[in-house]
Amino acid sequence: MTFDPETLKYNDAGLVPAIAQDADTSEILMMAWMNSEAVRRTLDSGRVTYWSRSRQSFWVKGESSGHVQELVDFRLDCDRDCLLVIVRQTGPACHTNRRSCFYTAVRAGDETELMSPTG
Amino acid sequence: MTFDPETLKYNDAGLVPAIAQDADTSEILMMAWMNSEAVRRTLDSGRVTYWSRSRQSFWVKGESSGHVQELVDFRLDCDRDCLLVIVRQTGPACHTNRRSCFYTAVRAGDETELMSPTG
Repeated sequence: MTFDPETLKYNDAGLVPAIAQDADTSEILMMAWMNSEAVRRTLDSGRVTYWSRSRQSFWVKGESSGHVQELVDFRLDCDRDCLLVIVRQTGPACHTNRRSCFYTAVRAGDETELMSPTG
Repeated sequence: MTFDPETLKYNDAGLVPAIAQDADTSEILMMAWMNSEAVRRTLDSGRVTYWSRSRQSFWVKGESSGHVQELVDFRLDCDRDCLLVIVRQTGPACHTNRRSCFYTAVRAGDETELMSPTG
């Protein structure tokens, strides 16, 4: 069946969450949002493209930092309201210069930092 | 630093997305939502508890199906607006009886089913 980005279920802002997972390590790198045009651009270009809610503009991941995400596989969930992009990540995915945005764990009630910024 | 669920950034509905990842295989199982009380219950009980938007009630994953999620690690992202729960999943995570909700891939423009329902 041909995939049509319009068949995804977007929220009131026209967005769907997209989880980015590292193709090599299976690590969860980040979560950001896409609108239907970002979905289309991601699939067409093979370069993961989000919608920046703060800047209200398309966000080709790594366009300014060089920390690009090359699309390896594109998945949708059973409810068609969440995406999983499996990516080859260049450099850190997080704006804090950590490999992943999920660098804080809660253990025994305390926040613990699991990763340091690189370079 | 002591973790306080109130310091997370919830959306207008008071919810934060929570990604569930399998502790053994690193597979992404599902994405659902938590409010601050669901976060608290998840951490206190070690049993992953979401907020069901459709039923508007707490949803102890697997309470009726037996497909429970035992919490192995709890992470938050840099923006404190997304959670990652690393879990030990009993049975399929998806209501379609598939291991993961992300069983549909988009490849060469077509939707492809990657997993079959179990049992």
